[in-house]
Amino acid sequence: MTRLHVAIPVRWSDLDAHGHVNNARMFTLLEEARIAAFWGGGPASPPTAVLETGAGAEVLTLIAAQQIEYRAPIPYHREPLDVELWMGRLGGASLQVCYEVFSPVGHEPRTLYVRAATTIVLVDRDSGAPRRLPDEARAAWEPFVDEPLTFRG
Amino acid sequence: MTRLHVAIPVRWSDLDAHGHVNNARMFTLLEEARIAAFWGGGPASPPTAVLETGAGAEVLTLIAAQQIEYRAPIPYHREPLDVELWMGRLGGASLQVCYEVFSPVGHEPRTLYVRAATTIVLVDRDSGAPRRLPDEARAAWEPFVDEPLTFRG
Amino acid sequence: MTRLHVAIPVRWSDLDAHGHVNNARMFTLLEEARIAAFWGGGPASPPTAVLETGAGAEVLTLIAAQQIEYRAPIPYHREPLDVELWMGRLGGASLQVCYEVFSPVGHEPRTLYVRAATTIVLVDRDSGAPRRLPDEARAAWEPFVDEPLTFRG
Amino acid sequence: MTRLHVAIPVRWSDLDAHGHVNNARMFTLLEEARIAAFWGGGPASPPTAVLETGAGAEVLTLIAAQQIEYRAPIPYHREPLDVELWMGRLGGASLQVCYEVFSPVGHEPRTLYVRAATTIVLVDRDSGAPRRLPDEARAAWEPFVDEPLTFRG
Repeated sequence: MTRLHVAIPVRWSDLDAHGHVNNARMFTLLEEARIAAFWGGGPASPPTAVLETGAGAEVLTLIAAQQIEYRAPIPYHREPLDVELWMGRLGGASLQVCYEVFSPVGHEPRTLYVRAATTIVLVDRDSGAPRRLPDEARAAWEPFVDEPLTFRG
Repeated sequence: MTRLHVAIPVRWSDLDAHGHVNNARMFTLLEEARIAAFWGGGPASPPTAVLETGAGAEVLTLIAAQQIEYRAPIPYHREPLDVELWMGRLGGASLQVCYEVFSPVGHEPRTLYVRAATTIVLVDRDSGAPRRLPDEARAAWEPFVDEPLTFRG
Repeated sequence: MTRLHVAIPVRWSDLDAHGHVNNARMFTLLEEARIAAFWGGGPASPPTAVLETGAGAEVLTLIAAQQIEYRAPIPYHREPLDVELWMGRLGGASLQVCYEVFSPVGHEPRTLYVRAATTIVLVDRDSGAPRRLPDEARAAWEPFVDEPLTFRG
Repeated sequence: MTRLHVAIPVRWSDLDAHGHVNNARMFTLLEEARIAAFWGGGPASPPTAVLETGAGAEVLTLIAAQQIEYRAPIPYHREPLDVELWMGRLGGASLQVCYEVFSPVGHEPRTLYVRAATTIVLVDRDSGAPRRLPDEARAAWEPFVDEPLTFRG
């Protein structure tokens, strides 16, 4: 089991009027974790020309689906959340990123806040047609393939 | 089949660097639709003292789970998105809101952008214990119960 | 004195952990008001080909400066805020939009929450060079020129 | 001249449809820098019981006014922005935080993106009355008082 760990800071404005991290904002935190881990910022960094996420990219990585379970409300933490990520599936022109979001490293007891999965498809920027996952990316990401999450209900 | 329709404006800052509504921000739009439809702003408006969503509420409505399918990227629209909502399930202390998000009313062709579902649990603000859905709320929401969405994959 | 009025809805997630509209988010609400009033949505609607705010626009409208005074914390309102806007200055390649943000229409007493001003410069998308305000836009906006706001301190 | 430096990460979703950090979002980044530098996370960390920014705080730190100049559009950076902060004024029940936001450390040429100032007042959570800046906070912050920024126009 090879998972990546990414430290994701919570902003004060991520809190809602209940004083918890807002449910929608959590997907922003997952997006940051995913980019840091797999899109050029982490140890599995694939060629950035191929999977660039910026406005000028040739291949867009579109989100096709997401699923999330919130296990406990997340209070404000000055220390970054500890996000575990892995590839739940690595298909031809799509992939699934899985996440488990924990309390900051060192906090006792370690708390699982969120379990989530994001299905991503690669498409051509201009035509919108599916684009095969490049070999370099597949090679870079294969070490991080693990059992996909299953969800309640 | 009795569904509610809510008009949800998109903000310019909801767009990401691809010029599409950001995947995480979509959950903010769903949140707004849900509040407008079922939490005191819509035709099914239950007693606000019971299901108040503000900071001083006695009963918190916590998001337990969400699932979403993005069918097409959403460009900037000056007119509000057309969100259809219904209750996919009305349980003892929990419920599921289902959504289909369409292009603004009058746009041709009508486009389905997003299908989603949110599972909500009612808990006591202080103890965190589950709280039964009040009878008034159940009565108000029952007319909007319909078949829950099923998702691909 | 000819001012425009725009109704700007507050989202529940605009609130921070104090239960007030977040100070930074207020600039998002001002942005929405400005676009609705002057960029194709309001009565002074100039040619949208010229001042399009979208990703494909030839002329970018860059924010050069902003100033704001918060007069009172803004609680959650289901009804939209009432934003008054006018042009504090209409220069060669720049302009200043002024705002006063009030409680929703009908709320008593009417409360002034925010006074603000935004200085905007028009620049060429590719070269970044200043671009003169087109005559059509100037003609459309001149009726809304009024005394610019002055700020304390 | 004693200024604090804080590293503030940009999120991908902070970008707008032009591919630049959104003008309103910049105030969120300034908020994060301010909290990290002066509210318990930085070297000048005052007693957190007194100036806690969370939902349960006795003393609220309300934003009274802000001013900003945008010098250059901010593209996406994987490395955090370099924010310089200091106290432009330390009054009885109010203070002014000044900021200069630069490109990430190591980027050449070093670019000044933003100059800004925030005026903050301390008020009692319940009564709303002004509350004097505690002696401990004043002592902690005095080393960081420097010339306040002046703005164009």
